Amino acid sequence: MASKITTREQAAGLLDSYDYFLFDCDGVIWLGDHLLPSVAETIALLKSSGKTVIFVTNNSSKARSDYERKFANLGIPGITRDEVFGSSYASAVYVERILQLPKDKKVWVLGEKGIEKELAEMGYVTVGGTDPDLTSGGVEFDAEHPQLRHLDPAVGCVVAGLSLTLNYLKLSITLQYLLKDNKSIPFVATNIDSTFPMKGQLLIGAGSVIETVSFASGRQPDAVCGKPNQSMMNTIKEMHPALKATPKRGLMVGDRLNTDMRFGREGGLDTLLVLTGIETEESVLAQPADVAPTYYASKLGDLFELTR
Amino acid sequence: MASKITTREQAAGLLDSYDYFLFDCDGVIWLGDHLLPSVAETIALLKSSGKTVIFVTNNSSKARSDYERKFANLGIPGITRDEVFGSSYASAVYVERILQLPKDKKVWVLGEKGIEKELAEMGYVTVGGTDPDLTSGGVEFDAEHPQLRHLDPAVGCVVAGLSLTLNYLKLSITLQYLLKDNKSIPFVATNIDSTFPMKGQLLIGAGSVIETVSFASGRQPDAVCGKPNQSMMNTIKEMHPALKATPKRGLMVGDRLNTDMRFGREGGLDTLLVLTGIETEESVLAQPADVAPTYYASKLGDLFELTR
Repeated sequence: MASKITTREQAAGLLDSYDYFLFDCDGVIWLGDHLLPSVAETIALLKSSGKTVIFVTNNSSKARSDYERKFANLGIPGITRDEVFGSSYASAVYVERILQLPKDKKVWVLGEKGIEKELAEMGYVTVGGTDPDLTSGGVEFDAEHPQLRHLDPAVGCVVAGLSLTLNYLKLSITLQYLLKDNKSIPFVATNIDSTFPMKGQLLIGAGSVIETVSFASGRQPDAVCGKPNQSMMNTIKEMHPALKATPKRGLMVGDRLNTDMRFGREGGLDTLLVLTGIETEESVLAQPADVAPTYYASKLGDLFELTR
Repeated sequence: MASKITTREQAAGLLDSYDYFLFDCDGVIWLGDHLLPSVAETIALLKSSGKTVIFVTNNSSKARSDYERKFANLGIPGITRDEVFGSSYASAVYVERILQLPKDKKVWVLGEKGIEKELAEMGYVTVGGTDPDLTSGGVEFDAEHPQLRHLDPAVGCVVAGLSLTLNYLKLSITLQYLLKDNKSIPFVATNIDSTFPMKGQLLIGAGSVIETVSFASGRQPDAVCGKPNQSMMNTIKEMHPALKATPKRGLMVGDRLNTDMRFGREGGLDTLLVLTGIETEESVLAQPADVAPTYYASKLGDLFELTR
């Protein structure tokens, strides 16, 4: 059973036990655009203690460069892009390193700017995504839209993720590429979270958007790049050989059992669940021993507040 | 194995064998807005021979009154609403007769006008659907939209189907109602066809749209009203006691194995697959004996052309 961090000794012991602190962002560091209490102080404490901090997010709407600015704007200075791993970046890494898609091939994007920017940084031309030509009619569907009737023969990959600006046209064009060439164009999902928490409500998540084109095409994604998939973990370990050598020197902090905690556990790290996001104390305590987090706490900021 | 109708004798024998002819529409009677060859003549021949014709469509975008006009406009006169069963009508029947939803309760609609009109004819007030307030921002998502932030307490049912004017807001509000009151609001699907054939392409079908909110909510529809579900068949049989007594006097004609042919077969009718829609001759001949259609033909109009 997970042990709850409630005392100075427990918090200090936890801080002593790890060199690498991996954090989910939404529900742990912030809720939307609001920083959670004592988080900036906790991050500062970790950095001043020589710990390595890494932020791992399934939100594909932003690129790493956007996250640099978001951290600074919310009062956590000095976070660099090398400390941030997003599912949009992980997807671009997958397209380049695993699929080895030639740079003269284009990527059809069902999703937002974060995916487009990370792929562009890798040298890929994207189509779809936030192209205003696909939303000029708003939600009205044009069955004769040129991008639906004439597919781009250079498209060699589909990357799909959360799209807040989806419409029937974007979904239907995505379907054409998934069906094209006898369903042979690779199908990459940024992440498959079913819901997307925003301002106290659960909205449609990336996984639910992807499910639409998946069901219509009869195809499952060939790869899911976000948590709990280990591709981001493997990339992180490549950049931090000491973590790769001894995963137990790392702690994954998150607010979701089925993504964050699983991501850490399957990577061989210990795990800390915080109750500022999706899960309740009851759901944590109800976990079987083999999948229970190592620790849980009311909030990340407790690590600072308990030890100051 | 299905026998192919290619001779005058086969066609005449088929016409003699049945009193009730049930037809799918798209891919059988028409393709979009184009009537298929010799269909008007075939329907006229059946009617002049005293046969009962019934049209059964999963397309929920139209109400029965719209289909009356469409038949007339395409040159098939005299088809009345009692001869047409659409999944929008079937859904409204389900809400009224099976769910017995009180008339002071509202229905949240994810879908088009056909559903709204059939529910209105039953005396229900609908919300959602084609409400322009939900698409005034086009595809831009407004997390503060009043209909998202303040759910209507009078909503007592969700009916979901094909929506060509979907956006993230409509999907997310639908999700709120599916999660509300501990997921207790009934969830009715018009039909679950994964794709929607249009002008030679396969577009996103009702089932794929519904899959989005189904995956996000963790709920399957409580009822699927379209083919192959038997609710429309049961309603048809109630209106035609002779068909109910002897289903083998009925022939279901369609272009899809997994909806039309299954609908007819499970209703106890014989089946005729026509090759003017989704299926190919290869796919028909590859069917195991227990699910193969009774007959197949190149097109419905062959019944007229072979016997004239």
